[in-house]
Amino acid sequence: MRRVILALGISLDGYIARPDGSVDFLFMPKDYSMGPFFKTVDTALMGRKTYEVGLRMSGGSFSNYGLACYVFSRTMSPGERPGATIVNDSPKSFVESLRKRKGKHIWLMGGGELARAFLQDDLIDEIHLGIVPTLLGEGIPLFPNGFPQRKFSLLENKTYSQGLITLKYERTRTKPNFKH
Amino acid sequence: MRRVILALGISLDGYIARPDGSVDFLFMPKDYSMGPFFKTVDTALMGRKTYEVGLRMSGGSFSNYGLACYVFSRTMSPGERPGATIVNDSPKSFVESLRKRKGKHIWLMGGGELARAFLQDDLIDEIHLGIVPTLLGEGIPLFPNGFPQRKFSLLENKTYSQGLITLKYERTRTKPNFKH
Repeated sequence: MRRVILALGISLDGYIARPDGSVDFLFMPKDYSMGPFFKTVDTALMGRKTYEVGLRMSGGSFSNYGLACYVFSRTMSPGERPGATIVNDSPKSFVESLRKRKGKHIWLMGGGELARAFLQDDLIDEIHLGIVPTLLGEGIPLFPNGFPQRKFSLLENKTYSQGLITLKYERTRTKPNFKH
Repeated sequence: MRRVILALGISLDGYIARPDGSVDFLFMPKDYSMGPFFKTVDTALMGRKTYEVGLRMSGGSFSNYGLACYVFSRTMSPGERPGATIVNDSPKSFVESLRKRKGKHIWLMGGGELARAFLQDDLIDEIHLGIVPTLLGEGIPLFPNGFPQRKFSLLENKTYSQGLITLKYERTRTKPNFKH
């Protein structure tokens, strides 16, 4: 089964970015690698704002890490863009169509508003967080309020240099909301 | 040196309580004990709203765990109340006066607004979090926005049954803001 994995670096106070979208506070310690994670995914999903920040920060050459990359937008017209495909579908119907096709897991890269939409429809199977030991004091929250309570279980935690800790959670569902 | 320790249980999305102040989502696994922490503190600080929730939930017999308990309020008149003393001082001047007296560490119990005031004045030396594996979707945030960026270092992390993980952080200051 293709799982939807929300995987992001966050500040200790739960922000994925500063108010202007910059993520300079995040860091990648030498003893940490995203390689093992990248081997498990072949598709990346993100919201329009996250895509635009990525475009701006890369000077227009958006890097999709070699993944099939889909950007959810209500305002942009669907179709191909640099490194990504714009989709107007609802998260629920799009994830259902992805799950019908064979493939690796699906990386939900952000941002907060898309994460909330996914949580409203209970589409997130795992949450992987990399928490840096900084309180930002302001920013864009990973979990903006406005979705029903969701129970998870802790799968794994690892610490790295410079105080990075990674946590992996798995959704605990009494009734699975999908079948394969 | 008496340290100010912000120590609280929170949801995975960073809430200390539901919107109505209730904390039914928090739990204490059998393999976890607050005993070692209680041995290190003799003073508890909290905001007026946290105190009132405590009073309401205990039916008026507020439990201060045998600690000297101070409640910060701008509206209540200073003086003795059930289990606590109301103070009108600023966090900064009150913590300075506590630090001049001998004693154990100081537990900042909450809530979010008082934590923010303490972070504004850089009064927090350690943060101890117990994270339960539940996304609430709404609630009272531990770290409401509105304070300057603060760097910490990760001291310790421990996992317990039912997916509880505890994290201990220490404030990283280039220039200490107090001397003893």
